[in-house]
Amino acid sequence: MSASKLKVTVIGSGNWGSSIARVCAQNTIKHSDVFEQEVRMWVFEEEIDGKKLTEIINEKHENVKYLPGINLGDNVVAIPDVRESVKGANILVFVLPHQFVYKVCESLRDVIPKENCTAISLIKGLDYKNNNLLIFSEEIEKILGIHCAALSGANIASEVAEEQFGETTIACRDPKDGETFFKLFHTDYFDVNVIGDWRGLQVCGALKNIVALGAGICDGLKYGNNTKSAVIRRGLVEMRKFGKTFFGDVHTETFFESCGVADLITTCAGGRNRKVAAAFIKSGKPIEEIEKEMLNGQKLQGTTTSQEVYHFLSSRNMTQDFPLMTAIYRVMYENASPESIALDLRTHHVKVE
Amino acid sequence: MSASKLKVTVIGSGNWGSSIARVCAQNTIKHSDVFEQEVRMWVFEEEIDGKKLTEIINEKHENVKYLPGINLGDNVVAIPDVRESVKGANILVFVLPHQFVYKVCESLRDVIPKENCTAISLIKGLDYKNNNLLIFSEEIEKILGIHCAALSGANIASEVAEEQFGETTIACRDPKDGETFFKLFHTDYFDVNVIGDWRGLQVCGALKNIVALGAGICDGLKYGNNTKSAVIRRGLVEMRKFGKTFFGDVHTETFFESCGVADLITTCAGGRNRKVAAAFIKSGKPIEEIEKEMLNGQKLQGTTTSQEVYHFLSSRNMTQDFPLMTAIYRVMYENASPESIALDLRTHHVKVE
Repeated sequence: MSASKLKVTVIGSGNWGSSIARVCAQNTIKHSDVFEQEVRMWVFEEEIDGKKLTEIINEKHENVKYLPGINLGDNVVAIPDVRESVKGANILVFVLPHQFVYKVCESLRDVIPKENCTAISLIKGLDYKNNNLLIFSEEIEKILGIHCAALSGANIASEVAEEQFGETTIACRDPKDGETFFKLFHTDYFDVNVIGDWRGLQVCGALKNIVALGAGICDGLKYGNNTKSAVIRRGLVEMRKFGKTFFGDVHTETFFESCGVADLITTCAGGRNRKVAAAFIKSGKPIEEIEKEMLNGQKLQGTTTSQEVYHFLSSRNMTQDFPLMTAIYRVMYENASPESIALDLRTHHVKVE
Repeated sequence: MSASKLKVTVIGSGNWGSSIARVCAQNTIKHSDVFEQEVRMWVFEEEIDGKKLTEIINEKHENVKYLPGINLGDNVVAIPDVRESVKGANILVFVLPHQFVYKVCESLRDVIPKENCTAISLIKGLDYKNNNLLIFSEEIEKILGIHCAALSGANIASEVAEEQFGETTIACRDPKDGETFFKLFHTDYFDVNVIGDWRGLQVCGALKNIVALGAGICDGLKYGNNTKSAVIRRGLVEMRKFGKTFFGDVHTETFFESCGVADLITTCAGGRNRKVAAAFIKSGKPIEEIEKEMLNGQKLQGTTTSQEVYHFLSSRNMTQDFPLMTAIYRVMYENASPESIALDLRTHHVKVE
């Protein structure tokens, strides 16, 4: 990156996107020697009571739809045209639902600066394509031809917006980018640790949601603490094994970071994956029906990832190497008895060397 | 150990001792080629409605005081004299409150067999002596001159007694002992993993209770998930650093076992250390008073360990290397503001290489 001040664009403006734009906007003011004050935020245009959402944000400095009651900062500027929003940007913060990533990236390819431009992905999950699981930050790198870091952690968006203390993890290839991202994201209440293992970080962010389904199955069966903590522990071990088996040099240390064990604990304690899975077990209805009832037609991250990981493993004849992930899928989608969540762990062990 | 059948004595008969005697009694029947069927259990004699507790146990096969409603098995024999209970024993299972360990061990020194005798410790915590922290299994080894393994995990005693699925970890020096202990403790519902790191296992078992106080402080302050999971994660990192700094070759893998992350999660989710710390914050009363009110005069494991670890660190000028453990102690005992639980984490970081 050059010596001139860095321009930041946040691509996405949901609950998490708005919270993180607010964090960035505080830091561009604090580090005015490094960043341009203004943080542009791409907002998918909607009408709210006859008024454009971008206009409301730019007048009230509040995302009334996705983060009501929180002042984003005067220096957050909402822009409805995504290509317009990234012109001359040096830092692109991707915080989109994953189904939009490719389309948005393709549309940006010819507008982003050819030099002095880097990205960071806050996109959840892995991309399932041709029976392969892809790392979003690497996909963004391929499309845009720039470096892309990733951020993930035990971060409930509303708590970050309320400035409750929490931690997060940033992973990137280039330590110099790491320093810049630290300045852009670290605050007193949002404690950043920078690591090198972007694959491990993103594997954790995807697979934790499957483990949370397992925790929910335990809750639905009214299992006690011993069983539930065994499921969470096995989940952590399988997450690590999955990373090391399919994504090369995933580091054990990554699982001690906020993106690893902390995010897993939070997701298995609260979180809608856990809740919906518990309701699924209690009701006996198909999971699609429960998702419809509880999530207004949205799909759970955990159920989608569970299906993808199962198909990925099963086409490689490796389901038996991941007994917990496999048991969870079979309970959710193949009418396996819910009790198999614990029964299968009695007979199948997983070891990571 | 010799080719003749192994005699097992469980030294202790509280809630956990009785549950574990029941597990052993199932396995001595199952592995009748390895073990004598009879499992002797030392019971500190008490009168229950005018009748001796040992007599009740031997008639009803139930510890009506400490594990009511659960059949221990006909082959568990309660013995009121501890020296009598270990005569000819090949396996000693220590599951006593830690304040009785030395006295009991001293009294056993001249009665236990000189050969073919090994022990396993289920004692919680570390022993604080002359401003040093000692590993109980090693203390037992010193006094008795026999090997002593250790067992610890995410094991709520009543859930084990009800045969709910759970996992545990056994650590021992000698792999042959490991095989024997696996046979004595592993069941369909009590899943044993044997490792070599007995120090790491016992460090986890002690320090998790301090972290649970931290989780309770967060709950008392009504902090959200981001803060609480940051505290638990920092706790895990400090547990590991403590082990590696003061106990030599503690293994990172140990923290992925049931005795590590799983036990930590359970203790921070339920558990009385967490509950009492939360009540302490809400009430504003001194912790000793809260302990008296809530625990009938008993002391919490976490508060005692917190004091011992703090004094241990402070005499070595190392409190700043363990900011979470230090902050918890200061909140509990030095009137530090409870908010320092998070505030101190903002400014102090801990890294394990």
